[in-house]
Amino acid sequence: MDIRVTVNDAFWNKYRELVRAEMIPYQWDVLNDAIDINIEKERDDDSIPSEKSHAIENFKIAAGRSKGEHYGWVFQDSDVYKWLEAVAYSLKYAWDDELKKTADSVVDLISEAQEADGYLNTYFTIKEPSRKYKRLAESHELYCAGHFIEAAVAYYEATSNEKVLSTARKLADHIFDTFGEGEGKLHDVDGHEEIEIGLMRLYHLTDNEKYMRTAEYFLRERGKDPDLFAKQRKADGGEPVIAGLDKAPNEYFQAHLPVEKQDTAEGHAVRVVYLCTALADLAATTKDKKLEDACRRLWRNIVDKRMYITGGIGSTVIGEAFTLDYDLPNDTMYCETCASIGLIFFARQMLRLEADAEYADIMERALYNTALSGMALDGKHFFYVNPLEAVPEKSEKDPTKSHVKIIRPEWLGCACCPPNLARMIASLDRYIYTVNENEILINLFIKSAMEYDNGSGRVSVRQETDYPGSGKIEVSVVNESNEDISIAIRIPNWCDAYSGSFDGQEQKITKDKGYWYIKVGKGTHEIGLEMEIKPKRWYANPKVSEDIGKVAISRGPQVYCIEGVDNGDDLHCVYLPEEAELDYEWQADLLGGVGVIEACGIRYMADSDKPLYSSSKERKSKEQKIRMIPYYAWANRGRNEMRVWLNEA
Amino acid sequence: MDIRVTVNDAFWNKYRELVRAEMIPYQWDVLNDAIDINIEKERDDDSIPSEKSHAIENFKIAAGRSKGEHYGWVFQDSDVYKWLEAVAYSLKYAWDDELKKTADSVVDLISEAQEADGYLNTYFTIKEPSRKYKRLAESHELYCAGHFIEAAVAYYEATSNEKVLSTARKLADHIFDTFGEGEGKLHDVDGHEEIEIGLMRLYHLTDNEKYMRTAEYFLRERGKDPDLFAKQRKADGGEPVIAGLDKAPNEYFQAHLPVEKQDTAEGHAVRVVYLCTALADLAATTKDKKLEDACRRLWRNIVDKRMYITGGIGSTVIGEAFTLDYDLPNDTMYCETCASIGLIFFARQMLRLEADAEYADIMERALYNTALSGMALDGKHFFYVNPLEAVPEKSEKDPTKSHVKIIRPEWLGCACCPPNLARMIASLDRYIYTVNENEILINLFIKSAMEYDNGSGRVSVRQETDYPGSGKIEVSVVNESNEDISIAIRIPNWCDAYSGSFDGQEQKITKDKGYWYIKVGKGTHEIGLEMEIKPKRWYANPKVSEDIGKVAISRGPQVYCIEGVDNGDDLHCVYLPEEAELDYEWQADLLGGVGVIEACGIRYMADSDKPLYSSSKERKSKEQKIRMIPYYAWANRGRNEMRVWLNEA
Repeated sequence: MDIRVTVNDAFWNKYRELVRAEMIPYQWDVLNDAIDINIEKERDDDSIPSEKSHAIENFKIAAGRSKGEHYGWVFQDSDVYKWLEAVAYSLKYAWDDELKKTADSVVDLISEAQEADGYLNTYFTIKEPSRKYKRLAESHELYCAGHFIEAAVAYYEATSNEKVLSTARKLADHIFDTFGEGEGKLHDVDGHEEIEIGLMRLYHLTDNEKYMRTAEYFLRERGKDPDLFAKQRKADGGEPVIAGLDKAPNEYFQAHLPVEKQDTAEGHAVRVVYLCTALADLAATTKDKKLEDACRRLWRNIVDKRMYITGGIGSTVIGEAFTLDYDLPNDTMYCETCASIGLIFFARQMLRLEADAEYADIMERALYNTALSGMALDGKHFFYVNPLEAVPEKSEKDPTKSHVKIIRPEWLGCACCPPNLARMIASLDRYIYTVNENEILINLFIKSAMEYDNGSGRVSVRQETDYPGSGKIEVSVVNESNEDISIAIRIPNWCDAYSGSFDGQEQKITKDKGYWYIKVGKGTHEIGLEMEIKPKRWYANPKVSEDIGKVAISRGPQVYCIEGVDNGDDLHCVYLPEEAELDYEWQADLLGGVGVIEACGIRYMADSDKPLYSSSKERKSKEQKIRMIPYYAWANRGRNEMRVWLNEA
Repeated sequence: MDIRVTVNDAFWNKYRELVRAEMIPYQWDVLNDAIDINIEKERDDDSIPSEKSHAIENFKIAAGRSKGEHYGWVFQDSDVYKWLEAVAYSLKYAWDDELKKTADSVVDLISEAQEADGYLNTYFTIKEPSRKYKRLAESHELYCAGHFIEAAVAYYEATSNEKVLSTARKLADHIFDTFGEGEGKLHDVDGHEEIEIGLMRLYHLTDNEKYMRTAEYFLRERGKDPDLFAKQRKADGGEPVIAGLDKAPNEYFQAHLPVEKQDTAEGHAVRVVYLCTALADLAATTKDKKLEDACRRLWRNIVDKRMYITGGIGSTVIGEAFTLDYDLPNDTMYCETCASIGLIFFARQMLRLEADAEYADIMERALYNTALSGMALDGKHFFYVNPLEAVPEKSEKDPTKSHVKIIRPEWLGCACCPPNLARMIASLDRYIYTVNENEILINLFIKSAMEYDNGSGRVSVRQETDYPGSGKIEVSVVNESNEDISIAIRIPNWCDAYSGSFDGQEQKITKDKGYWYIKVGKGTHEIGLEMEIKPKRWYANPKVSEDIGKVAISRGPQVYCIEGVDNGDDLHCVYLPEEAELDYEWQADLLGGVGVIEACGIRYMADSDKPLYSSSKERKSKEQKIRMIPYYAWANRGRNEMRVWLNEA
């Protein structure tokens, strides 16, 4: 089904314009090493290459256009692919001949770097051709392939560039020929899931089942043989392709159990949600109930036990990984930007499986908070790690927290996050609506229009809103088809009071799994939804030891935080009284326009002249106006403290 | 001055007997690989050798008695030296011919392993003779030498074994010949301070100034040239002797600044306090005011800003190190047993510099809490890391906390702590009193007798007490000398109410830097001190973000904790009301006899069926009897949670 969505939203168009005008050109310069920037390591690790990107140059060398050595991570190619994918989406909403020309040239370059049999990976082509597919646990060859295929599908859809599609098919065919059941094929999986997403996407475009079956093969093969990666290493015998990764346990790769038997989200967080994204896509496509159940179990474990209120996932820097239920430290966590982006991917696929607004709630939570916090307002500085509590001196002097950056770097040694953000934001139109035949789920409140043909005629939906500024949503439906269309509007889980109307008549809203359903017959119809959107307190389950006695504030989809620049240092001394009023005010001049929440709070005086431990509690306090800003906008005013969970008085 | 102290204390004799009867034989078996035990790595690090000890065998190989390869850390020898030192102290309070014979044989073995020029280190003798003194930042050669010299002095003092002293002098002379100012000598320092302590001790025994001057050279040379270790590595050119340690910054080694310019405790915590111990010894010996000031500054920084309430130091596992002021996380900290032992060493030397009871307060805090918690009640299981908050599942599944063991292992890959505890406890008599000519500081309340000759006659002090059971102290002084003796009894900083008597007369106690001074003329005199000793609340400076809103309980010198076995899991859900009464009761049958504190508390119900985040706070709670035990005794009843800082209601 060809669904066309155009976004025309005040909040998001700013970002989409930023992607087009700033991020894409900036990242192009970075990938070409054409600008002088400071590339930081995402964590304190000597093995992280951080001199330059070299990503385009790697392709030139592999293509024979340049001479030289490969530089960077074994998965450096994926930076280029994600950039190309972002360009594809950007061209769809803002055509640009020049950019198209540049991107076409990149396609030509990639195609030249591809080997005759379809193999594509600059690291192995240039540096270790004899080790192709020999260390898949570490090599990211299929991971990179998956990213190229995703990019190729997007670029083909945006530009009809035939070469990109033929290159991708050649690569996918090569993978199909190389991996799979039966003799003469490799029975292996990649250490980092992604190929599965790419192949599913190629299947959706081409309808060629072999791509889906190859994706399915990888998904089902994973975790079957717990010795798989050990055997790989033994057979190869050489040094690890990524130092240290050869020591990672199977859980890190989600290879400890067949995916259908995995009940908890284990290991590297990005890998988990990429796995789940492909799995949910396959389950939705094949209607396989067992796979669907597996997706649901992993979803429940993440969302009920292992996710930060900001939609961040990954509780530890060691392995950038999940840890255990309710282990959610606010200051040593990882919460990688890419992991929240992956959670959004996963949620989108789950909405295809089931019209449950919870998926959209989480998608929105991750989108407006930890995904967005991954970039500065200028679109040129990026967080890999998104803390819920940051103290500059601790990040600088406590090595346990050295991965928690206080200022977003201009680029990262492992640059997965910046282009991932670009492609996510540029493809936002793909997340707003889910269409199941004659049912349209409105998942996100973003001013936009969508239309499709349901077979008996055109159906179009127009959403008018200034959300999250207000909670007022106006939906116009033009149904030119012969079918009744079911419009399902999400009532977000944060919303306690709402009212609705249909064609001017007030409606009693009943929620079915979080959606309000309105049947719409032929003609033009108007649906109105008015949601109360105001500052709100949140409490974590008492099982979360780090959040007990604390409160988090949100407004609509946005989680709020306090920063030192507004509230002074030692933010742990700031207490928000339980009964304090929370006043919201839009401030157009602040941080590119944000809603600020203020409250009368208390500050306990911290005095370094006092003893470290004292038996007298006599604690001086004073009133303090607490000023909160949306979490995503933190760290845009210099080096300072930040805190999401506030002590409650 | 020859001061003879005998300990006859209910609390400590149990431990001293444990050292004699269990720890020394057990550790002897371990050092000989004669028992089958499970050696655990102290943290998750592949480079930690943990197959066996091999420490005695290394000496046999170096001595030519055995054939084979060196095994273990480059500083494995020091385990033997510390064992020998513990034996020396043990023999002083419990003579044992068999043990003496065994220890003499170890002395013979060490002496045989010594090279002709005096050099002594089995790793380099066996494995890399060409790299002697070439990688001192990592090699621990002088560290081991320092431990041998300490052991030798102690063993000589206990047994008059001449060979141990001559071996130590030969080693010290060799070091004097090799290192120092001027041409033809190495201008270098060891990466781990300890030689300075050993040389000072040898100086005190022999009165030979060159040993003190060599110690002084090392202390003053340290940090002078910030490139020293880098030059070393460059000149050597080979692989690091300890993988990774070559990457450690100068701060890790306290080599970033000359010690007189160091205002804050930086780097590896054990190294810092070993450095300070020698520095304070040198300052007290030479009356050098600048060095004294340096000691004071480092002391103030540790005690005022960087020490846990348990006397633990080292806020991070990465580098086992100090971090920054007020950074005292309770669950990711290090608080190595050896670091608290070193803090006790440091305090003891500071008492020679100045009669300030704070030094003894801290000594007592470290002794009764983090030092003692380093071992199980059976004397055969040891903690390297002493957390203030431990949750078994987090230690097992959150790699950020994998260094926080829940059960004390039988032995550790790096076995510095077990023999350090043995020598500390066995030499407890050295910490109770500080004698400065005619002034006797009574630092610790331990049933004991001491005597010395002040030149004009014998002075003896007898201390009767069941402390910390009660706060009643009876001191008998027999002054047979011609001088008035000033007896200074510490009034601990935790004590708010006390009364005193002298020869039956009630006295008004005035404190001078925490000591109560009583002048005692010729004859026999009785001093009485009655201290109120009861459960007490402590609050951390609000600068410590991890402890805000929390309370710790102590009684006398002992910090208390709660354990899961007494209080159920999810200890963060247990709140101690501000006004709750704290009832103390001695329980002879529990944990070898401990005082238990109970209070009426509240438990918030943690329910894993509830959502992870909720806007309703409706939190169910119930009354709960909170049962606290002394911190040192935790983890003696199986795998369970523990917490020192309790949430306060």
